[in-house]
Amino acid sequence: MTATDRIYTAGLVVIGDEILSGRTHDKNIAQVASWLQVQGIRLSEVRVVPDILERIVEAVNALREGNDYLFTTGGIGPTHDDITVDAVAAALGVGVVIHPAARAVLEKYYADKGGVNEGRLRMARVPEGADLIPNRMSGAPGIKIGNIHMMAGVPHIAAQMLDALTGTLEGGAPLLSETIGGYIPESEVSSLLREVEQAHEDCQIGSYPFFREGRVGANFVIRSTDADALQSCLYTLCEGLAENGWDFTPGGI
Amino acid sequence: MTATDRIYTAGLVVIGDEILSGRTHDKNIAQVASWLQVQGIRLSEVRVVPDILERIVEAVNALREGNDYLFTTGGIGPTHDDITVDAVAAALGVGVVIHPAARAVLEKYYADKGGVNEGRLRMARVPEGADLIPNRMSGAPGIKIGNIHMMAGVPHIAAQMLDALTGTLEGGAPLLSETIGGYIPESEVSSLLREVEQAHEDCQIGSYPFFREGRVGANFVIRSTDADALQSCLYTLCEGLAENGWDFTPGGI
Repeated sequence: MTATDRIYTAGLVVIGDEILSGRTHDKNIAQVASWLQVQGIRLSEVRVVPDILERIVEAVNALREGNDYLFTTGGIGPTHDDITVDAVAAALGVGVVIHPAARAVLEKYYADKGGVNEGRLRMARVPEGADLIPNRMSGAPGIKIGNIHMMAGVPHIAAQMLDALTGTLEGGAPLLSETIGGYIPESEVSSLLREVEQAHEDCQIGSYPFFREGRVGANFVIRSTDADALQSCLYTLCEGLAENGWDFTPGGI
Repeated sequence: MTATDRIYTAGLVVIGDEILSGRTHDKNIAQVASWLQVQGIRLSEVRVVPDILERIVEAVNALREGNDYLFTTGGIGPTHDDITVDAVAAALGVGVVIHPAARAVLEKYYADKGGVNEGRLRMARVPEGADLIPNRMSGAPGIKIGNIHMMAGVPHIAAQMLDALTGTLEGGAPLLSETIGGYIPESEVSSLLREVEQAHEDCQIGSYPFFREGRVGANFVIRSTDADALQSCLYTLCEGLAENGWDFTPGGI
């Protein structure tokens, strides 16, 4: 395995009772996953946990140790149920301090909005030793300490923080993918998929069935970090589908 | 604590590379969470793991032991990447068998569609000792063994399986909720929220900020299994917001 073959992985802890109650539909899993792909980092596991300190600490410790990076979303706002900073500090065994630059950002942002009160100042609290992740959208920054990146729960604020991190994390070769799809029942081609995957050991094939307008079909996604292997696998799969009389669409349907 | 005070919990394992790659936006977390609320069961944790046997086994074992129920979504289809049945069987230390009733369902469903081939028969494989969860939508049933419920990854098929399970699981008092919201920056009312929650120990208050059309606001969700405590907490919060001059909308905005 050469240096560029190294696979970089990340874990994600999504924090919030609102996700576990079904009230809020999470959008951060897909957003963080897609962003990581472009950075050459693979999302290896997600845990969604409630606003309970010990549960957040447990998930943070479990996922930060097995991965190159850990991301969290949620729980960094100004209210009493925002306890992610406390949980990460507890997981790392460090204290919580007011970050002077975060305080300055908040003071500037709220200068004409009534100034910094107790609630707003909560958003300047960080684990001791942490740096800030800029956020152009609102006053409150994200927080970075070691391999842990704490981001907002509101998806478009989290997006700003990801944008600020783009290109700053060391990753490996990005995972490439090709998709083809058709009104093909996956149970009709399961042997073909298995054979093609086995013949291309650097590739994985995922099969994603759908039901649309009363018809069954599937998209087949081939993934590899090796562009040549990917094209070879795609060619073999297309050939196999054509030989069996299936119509398919490049790019998926 | 009386019998009705007992809190029932469930874990959910979402299985699939397509979620971790960002290609597919998960809809099952919110769907299962909302359904569980109505059954009087609280979703306590979600883990999203890749199509790797050991990783599924690990997540299944972690969440089935700490909860009354475990649900899985994904990986019960006919293709080579569908390994949830194998993983659950491995977690429980039992073998995998063809379920005769599942085979019969599939034979009937595929009678005029070319019959049951090798791929389709994969969908009749179950951990030894399992029962089926009916699915009116397609031939493939869900699977139930002990406190584990294996469901499809396609959201509207999972919905059929949840529907078949409605009312069959023992739960506690359902978690009730009331929501109020307004164009109120949550940092302005963080002390109020904390005080009101502390004064109502049977209630939790969640604060969910939003940014819409250039304005900041938040919805405040009060949750309790005690209807009287919930109304009392709601009243106190509304009173506190009104005293501070905030406009708010019952039901949230």
